[in-house]
Amino acid sequence: MPIVRVEMWEGRTLEQKRELVEVFTREMSRICGCTEAGIHIVIDEVKKENWAMGGQLCHEKFPDPPA
Amino acid sequence: MPIVRVEMWEGRTLEQKRELVEVFTREMSRICGCTEAGIHIVIDEVKKENWAMGGQLCHEKFPDPPA
Amino acid sequence: MPIVRVEMWEGRTLEQKRELVEVFTREMSRICGCTEAGIHIVIDEVKKENWAMGGQLCHEKFPDPPA
Amino acid sequence: MPIVRVEMWEGRTLEQKRELVEVFTREMSRICGCTEAGIHIVIDEVKKENWAMGGQLCHEKFPDPPA
Amino acid sequence: MPIVRVEMWEGRTLEQKRELVEVFTREMSRICGCTEAGIHIVIDEVKKENWAMGGQLCHEKFPDPPA
Amino acid sequence: MPIVRVEMWEGRTLEQKRELVEVFTREMSRICGCTEAGIHIVIDEVKKENWAMGGQLCHEKFPDPPA
Repeated sequence: MPIVRVEMWEGRTLEQKRELVEVFTREMSRICGCTEAGIHIVIDEVKKENWAMGGQLCHEKFPDPPA
Repeated sequence: MPIVRVEMWEGRTLEQKRELVEVFTREMSRICGCTEAGIHIVIDEVKKENWAMGGQLCHEKFPDPPA
Repeated sequence: MPIVRVEMWEGRTLEQKRELVEVFTREMSRICGCTEAGIHIVIDEVKKENWAMGGQLCHEKFPDPPA
Repeated sequence: MPIVRVEMWEGRTLEQKRELVEVFTREMSRICGCTEAGIHIVIDEVKKENWAMGGQLCHEKFPDPPA
Repeated sequence: MPIVRVEMWEGRTLEQKRELVEVFTREMSRICGCTEAGIHIVIDEVKKENWAMGGQLCHEKFPDPPA
Repeated sequence: MPIVRVEMWEGRTLEQKRELVEVFTREMSRICGCTEAGIHIVIDEVKKENWAMGGQLCHEKFPDPPA
């Protein structure tokens, strides 16, 4: 039954997402005693220009390293 | 005044969205006694690779049928 | 799979909530072609003093009628 | 510590977002007495076809002016 | 049209909420060019035991001062 | 920077919440490479009468066992 929503900057790989949802589901089930099948996780990838910390947009506060 | 937020996989047609918001608004107004004009509905289309059920990303658990 | 979240002022009766989730689930399933069993609806009842419209808290903008 | 989430139609400029997060952060800190550094703001830009008011999708209810 | 959602620890006074929604509405309208009447703000007051930072529940990480 | 939001029925103990936020924070940091200090987790405890699955309110679909 639980719903977990993860908001983070875009850019995580598919492999990272895959591991994240596996681990969160397994641990949530173990700790809270709910079945794994009923756990939903929704990942919300946010562009850095749409996230601010301390009043500053993150693409300016934490610029990506040069490629 | 109510706000309804619908999270679902991407891929619904405009016609489906149009009918969904019409029906939800009409029924919400009828059941809860609020004016239709004040009802907001926000649809959040989520990529299947950003939604997990039972610990598995949905684009892998429920792959799209071949085109 | 869809998740519907309804934010509204507190005060709806159990009967209203019951009808709302029945109708929303049935219509969502019919329009979008998903199974009813997979539809989650979460109702978030908000106190009027925690909701503002047009810059004014709703318990002041829309006071409850005297009992 | 506070988290502010802004949902609005897409189309605001970077300059508007920059000013919005500056002002919201400064005012939130001033009014609520929390440090600016701890305030997160997430902007969620929603397509008009995914937002409905009064039962009608906004790209149809409020069409964009011709370019 | 915009919806602003503020999540913060419970405990702000009515006066703080009143000023917060006034200022956010006025500034949002000024910066983004939307009418004040259409702006919704929802405040979500979260108990400190339901908020974690750095892996620790906030009522333990930041205990309230003795009364 | 990430924000994790957990919606579940009310009734988890403080000990369960404490372990959940510890584990989620540690695993999120390990998998996604972000610092633990920047991770926020907000738990939203929902009454069973405000959660529906398959069109039925959960306090009726899954009644609590007798005490």
